[in-house]
Amino acid sequence: MTAPADEFDIIRSLFAPLATGAGARGLIDDVAILSPRGDIVVTTDAIIEGVHFLPADPIETVAKKALRVNLSDLAAKGAKPVGILLTLLWPHSRPAAQIADFARGLGEDLKLYDVALLGGDTCATPGPLTVSITAFGEPYGARTPSRADASIGEQVWVSGYIGEAFLGLMQLTAEPDILGAAPEDRVDYLAARARLHYRVPQPPVAFARAVAEFASASIDVSDGLIADAGKLAAASGVAIRIDADAVPLLGGEDYVARHGAAGLMRLLCGGDDYQALFTAAPESRGAIVEAGRAAGVVVTLIGEVESGAGVRVVGADGRELPHAAGGHAHRLGN
Amino acid sequence: MTAPADEFDIIRSLFAPLATGAGARGLIDDVAILSPRGDIVVTTDAIIEGVHFLPADPIETVAKKALRVNLSDLAAKGAKPVGILLTLLWPHSRPAAQIADFARGLGEDLKLYDVALLGGDTCATPGPLTVSITAFGEPYGARTPSRADASIGEQVWVSGYIGEAFLGLMQLTAEPDILGAAPEDRVDYLAARARLHYRVPQPPVAFARAVAEFASASIDVSDGLIADAGKLAAASGVAIRIDADAVPLLGGEDYVARHGAAGLMRLLCGGDDYQALFTAAPESRGAIVEAGRAAGVVVTLIGEVESGAGVRVVGADGRELPHAAGGHAHRLGN
Repeated sequence: MTAPADEFDIIRSLFAPLATGAGARGLIDDVAILSPRGDIVVTTDAIIEGVHFLPADPIETVAKKALRVNLSDLAAKGAKPVGILLTLLWPHSRPAAQIADFARGLGEDLKLYDVALLGGDTCATPGPLTVSITAFGEPYGARTPSRADASIGEQVWVSGYIGEAFLGLMQLTAEPDILGAAPEDRVDYLAARARLHYRVPQPPVAFARAVAEFASASIDVSDGLIADAGKLAAASGVAIRIDADAVPLLGGEDYVARHGAAGLMRLLCGGDDYQALFTAAPESRGAIVEAGRAAGVVVTLIGEVESGAGVRVVGADGRELPHAAGGHAHRLGN
Repeated sequence: MTAPADEFDIIRSLFAPLATGAGARGLIDDVAILSPRGDIVVTTDAIIEGVHFLPADPIETVAKKALRVNLSDLAAKGAKPVGILLTLLWPHSRPAAQIADFARGLGEDLKLYDVALLGGDTCATPGPLTVSITAFGEPYGARTPSRADASIGEQVWVSGYIGEAFLGLMQLTAEPDILGAAPEDRVDYLAARARLHYRVPQPPVAFARAVAEFASASIDVSDGLIADAGKLAAASGVAIRIDADAVPLLGGEDYVARHGAAGLMRLLCGGDDYQALFTAAPESRGAIVEAGRAAGVVVTLIGEVESGAGVRVVGADGRELPHAAGGHAHRLGN
């Protein structure tokens, strides 16, 4: 791909103000320099138009989603985000003028989360808009919880609400009326909230310090609660019991009221939640609730680590609800 | 994108053997952990099918190119590569069986360069095959040369050969006979070498320690020698003089013999060289030559840092050769 050099200069001028640290070298160098005080936690996630976001999503929210899916990984691992590398693959067919809006949206979030743009790569592509971010974090604790550290008898917690983003995606695509059976104001509220959560995930960044303090094992919930709980269970060699009634839903409560267990399972398998699932010792329960309150992050006890394998979702009557083991798999690895 | 979980398990099983370090957590976690001994030099570059490589390129060479364009950045900055994150966006339309070949090719290069796979992200995409790599390096020296540190009177050096990859690309695409005027054996040799250099760059990794020791300013030559020299000149606030006859060509010598100055300019603007351009004090000349010999890397004195701005290419008769200021621009930022 050849492009006039001045076009790239214009693009760079949009991102350079976001590159606030000395290590970024003003985005004009081949590399950036990290000067860490200890371990660095790194993660990388890409989002692709038509796969992880919708072509009609506002470009500012695409930028924020690309960042936040990575911040979600860091939060789930008890790390404070400090910097990112941005790879922006911009379609020939998308107006270049939108890049300024992308940069503005990204800049708002970098400021909100106090994260520096360190560098990156921008190319024109014949394919869909693709945003890949590598994020660097500093661990809050001496150890970074892995997926493999859950022990039988620990409690299972999740941050935020589950199924919101799934409802938003459905409402924006196949099922515009998915929330349409409540009083109109509430439907409008829930629908707007669901759309928001699909487009702009709300990872529990403010709760990351508590994850580092209390979590034994943890995972980012992005491919569906059940699927990701299953990965944690498999890595730890345990089973996870999820108490269906305990899972925090919001718009989902109305949906489940109408659709019952099948509706609930759709929410628990839906994906795009970008919350943290973690296990912790029962004696930490009070401190975890308190830490969530202090951080302004909803955290909910939803189950327990048991012997065995896989994920069991159990209803209020103690009976197991059937579910397909899979989820909404975008990715592999970390 | 939904995909059966077991498909992703198969993919992960191909890459897990490449994740040799403890920090990679066997690729099963959301994050990887770096435990650096000091500063970390980071870079990220993506390659896109039809932009940075050809759809018919062997998939093993695509893997190696994706890695080596990043190793080139680290080498140009005097850093030893230690680890990478891999983002692999695999088209629905490309046979999944090729992923094993991709992993094998990548694994060969990771072993060759003693670099660990730390983690990454793999998604199916409706777009072209895209491989984005973030590479981490440890600086060999106390300082990492930037583009902005050139001083008037310093000498300008380049590693490797210039224009080889351009000849390879032309031969594979618009001009199959671009090398076709020499004795047949030599044409075959040059053509094979040019194709090789387009598909599998030969960055001066073994010379990185010497870059750290001797370079004042440096840049990765990827968008064409003249364009990248121009970026170094602009960042440093100087002019770069390049002595046309000094630029190391190989297949390019035959090509220039037939096409003269216009042919030379095509090679100097061609791109995809993935070599290091650096400036150094004149008194380091002997030591640089010796370091190149010791590392088995061709390094050539090609010009000088002068007052002024921009890049002047000067022929043997002392006259300036005209050139367009631009180059083969894939990217922006670092």
